[in-house]
Amino acid sequence: MRNKHLNIVRPKHILSASQFDRPFLDYFNQLTTTIRRFDKTKEGLMYLQSLLCHKRAMLYFTQPSTRTFLSFQSASQIVGMKTSEIRDTSTSSERKGETIDDSLRTFSSYVDIIIMRSPVRGLCDHIASILDQTDRPVPIINAGSGPDEHPTQALLDIYTLDRSFKNIGGIEGKTICMVGDLKRGRTVRSLSRLLTLYPGTKILFASPEAFKIEDDLRTMLRTKKVEFIETTEFKDAIASADAIYMTRIQDEYDVSGESKAVDYSNFCLKESHLKILKDHCVIMHPLPRRDELDSKIDNDPRAKYWRQERNGMWTRVALMTVLMDVDRNIMLPEL
Amino acid sequence: MRNKHLNIVRPKHILSASQFDRPFLDYFNQLTTTIRRFDKTKEGLMYLQSLLCHKRAMLYFTQPSTRTFLSFQSASQIVGMKTSEIRDTSTSSERKGETIDDSLRTFSSYVDIIIMRSPVRGLCDHIASILDQTDRPVPIINAGSGPDEHPTQALLDIYTLDRSFKNIGGIEGKTICMVGDLKRGRTVRSLSRLLTLYPGTKILFASPEAFKIEDDLRTMLRTKKVEFIETTEFKDAIASADAIYMTRIQDEYDVSGESKAVDYSNFCLKESHLKILKDHCVIMHPLPRRDELDSKIDNDPRAKYWRQERNGMWTRVALMTVLMDVDRNIMLPEL
Amino acid sequence: MRNKHLNIVRPKHILSASQFDRPFLDYFNQLTTTIRRFDKTKEGLMYLQSLLCHKRAMLYFTQPSTRTFLSFQSASQIVGMKTSEIRDTSTSSERKGETIDDSLRTFSSYVDIIIMRSPVRGLCDHIASILDQTDRPVPIINAGSGPDEHPTQALLDIYTLDRSFKNIGGIEGKTICMVGDLKRGRTVRSLSRLLTLYPGTKILFASPEAFKIEDDLRTMLRTKKVEFIETTEFKDAIASADAIYMTRIQDEYDVSGESKAVDYSNFCLKESHLKILKDHCVIMHPLPRRDELDSKIDNDPRAKYWRQERNGMWTRVALMTVLMDVDRNIMLPEL
Repeated sequence: MRNKHLNIVRPKHILSASQFDRPFLDYFNQLTTTIRRFDKTKEGLMYLQSLLCHKRAMLYFTQPSTRTFLSFQSASQIVGMKTSEIRDTSTSSERKGETIDDSLRTFSSYVDIIIMRSPVRGLCDHIASILDQTDRPVPIINAGSGPDEHPTQALLDIYTLDRSFKNIGGIEGKTICMVGDLKRGRTVRSLSRLLTLYPGTKILFASPEAFKIEDDLRTMLRTKKVEFIETTEFKDAIASADAIYMTRIQDEYDVSGESKAVDYSNFCLKESHLKILKDHCVIMHPLPRRDELDSKIDNDPRAKYWRQERNGMWTRVALMTVLMDVDRNIMLPEL
Repeated sequence: MRNKHLNIVRPKHILSASQFDRPFLDYFNQLTTTIRRFDKTKEGLMYLQSLLCHKRAMLYFTQPSTRTFLSFQSASQIVGMKTSEIRDTSTSSERKGETIDDSLRTFSSYVDIIIMRSPVRGLCDHIASILDQTDRPVPIINAGSGPDEHPTQALLDIYTLDRSFKNIGGIEGKTICMVGDLKRGRTVRSLSRLLTLYPGTKILFASPEAFKIEDDLRTMLRTKKVEFIETTEFKDAIASADAIYMTRIQDEYDVSGESKAVDYSNFCLKESHLKILKDHCVIMHPLPRRDELDSKIDNDPRAKYWRQERNGMWTRVALMTVLMDVDRNIMLPEL
Repeated sequence: MRNKHLNIVRPKHILSASQFDRPFLDYFNQLTTTIRRFDKTKEGLMYLQSLLCHKRAMLYFTQPSTRTFLSFQSASQIVGMKTSEIRDTSTSSERKGETIDDSLRTFSSYVDIIIMRSPVRGLCDHIASILDQTDRPVPIINAGSGPDEHPTQALLDIYTLDRSFKNIGGIEGKTICMVGDLKRGRTVRSLSRLLTLYPGTKILFASPEAFKIEDDLRTMLRTKKVEFIETTEFKDAIASADAIYMTRIQDEYDVSGESKAVDYSNFCLKESHLKILKDHCVIMHPLPRRDELDSKIDNDPRAKYWRQERNGMWTRVALMTVLMDVDRNIMLPEL
């Protein structure tokens, strides 16, 4: 056997970052890197398209998202899948009084995989369990649901860290500094969960008092015995970090404009900070950004957020090959 | 000759259920069943894609419809056609004062087939006749136009009946019970018309007094000498039926909310009714449904509406192969 | 060497009609004609699809346009490119406070070419220069930006003229009459610029006083020593023209409904005018039209506007092959 990781437990759906274990992540990162090599030639890209050219994907995105939508759509195209999309329920049968269960069951009649982003908490899990009881239990990918989960963002973040640290010992033992609106950013929650799988990792949470992490995350990290520090001292935190994960204020979740009352100015990464960062420090951001991350930093070699974004597309390609059970054609191509 | 049905009259456009005759339906059902076999393997699906991979389809859907849209889009993808779409005239040249004739002629410049769903009665026929006078007379498929015609729904309904009755003598001589808003449901009208092509078929129309069928349908059935009964006794009707065709209230055609005044409660199929149905009874519904069809029935083996929906996609695949003249490559594949 | 034109300067982006020179146009017209021959067979169309089947195109159309959008989308499909689209910034990350620079840089992460139509003057040039500074400098095509440039419309207009005059000596020395809203029609401005590359060409500008050409165009033509006449005498102008280029009132650029005050009735081409036109006169219109061009003219053999529209798709196919550097596979196909 050329690749022991092919023995990983294969997921049926992708619903939560908590479903991944370390063997899966190790295999997944290796798979993604292998897939990216196919991008270098027309022949490689045509081989990727041949993998799932007979399949169809539905992009059900009723929560606005350009970036994640395009990333998944491009990933679908790369593996050859045809796509259809729902962006707006106002043109749909839901207007005619159909339940969401029936709508999704209808979509499952036509396609082979459903990628869902919805403002409704728990909808992906619900639909996955409904479809599992039918004769067409197509895989569901949670592409971000309301304020809770965004598992594919966590996968691309871990992949970016893994690649960035590949020559300096990997993620284990590193210090990751997360900055910003840590209270409401679901990417912070999902990434922290995956970091618990890397022994010795230390997390610095740097945020204004009003945006500190929530108790559930605190409890989870303590249970997993992950070292973490909560601080309002931005400069100290970034100076000691191996990676800085910037986030923007999630004011779309404001109840009554409370974000405006928070002074965010001390949690913005500026060009002037570059000199205090470690030489190998990795600067990340899930994007879109506002002024918390100065565009003057873009050209610094430590700025990895544009690469991180493109990694998002490739990790989603990898994820689809796993869910549709063709990843072994990449890791063990036929002779 | 291996298949006598290849001598059917080939339609140029699909505009109305009344254009089909019995030889066409028999051939068409056989073609659809043959095509579905290609769904079982990657090679089969790739063969279907190869049939029309050099063609482009336009989906012109200015009347909201998720189900029919996705069904046609998936069918187009299955035969390899690339698609483009118009969902909303507000982004179109019509805003710049272009006539609908010019808009559709423009679309015909770019594509090889146009699939139309419009709230405007008679628009498909009009556009088909306009295009027939140009040097690019591309085929038009009526995918549901206003309150009058929905020929592809009728085709998929007939196909579902034909398959369901294949071991008990076919559609001829069976009793079909249509339930609900029979006054405004265009599927009822189109399906009834096709049922006249099957001698001995009997139709039971079960509806509230306010939603009885209209005179034009009554006259048509009498002219064709089809036996039919109009009743308000729901239980008696479904108990004697070989197939039950449920429909929802079409309140989108209400002038002033008149549907609210109608008591529909006695025309809902519930789990408790299952015991009075015939063992071979076929339960159908064009979907979307509301409470006229209890979701608890979904798991009963007589419930065929989810299969019916998926049949819709495959009958549309078949229809495109006929219109684009590649169906003989399915019935008589090259050696 | 079979084709000397393969030595043309290859553009990196398509931003303005002013970037084309005569050798490029001559090569481009020949390329388009060659490509159209591939439309005659399934094999030819499959060959075109094979050229860029490993590439992805983004259609960024935030200014409403059905015709140009579909033309580019179909062209992308013809060369095998997968497409994604932005039609409406309201579903995009711009709502989350992202800059347009970041949005476009994101799109460039996922695709291989970006086709842009925006109401913002100069946006295409700006984005092209931003992307040129990154490690993914994908080509930009200006598909019409605000009131200024529409270079691909100019290319298709020149191609249509070139083909129409191919048996009577080409474009050089011909009299082209442009009619209508010459003040605000960007197609008039772009086409005039390209006509300066054909020695001896004479332009008649026939318009109401209120819609005369602007000083910048006047100055440009004088600098290039192109003969032109401005007139309000519609009949005299069209009678002496080798080609008539009709345009509609561009009232979408009205500040306060000023178009309504202009009498356009004397600048409408009617069936009754056909008898005064030259036998070889070419009637063009960028479409959509209103009543300035009577649909009764459509069947006259001199009416070329529907062909012109379809030429638009083919010239865009040609343009993509040039930008993506596969045009030599058409002009010099591998043996």
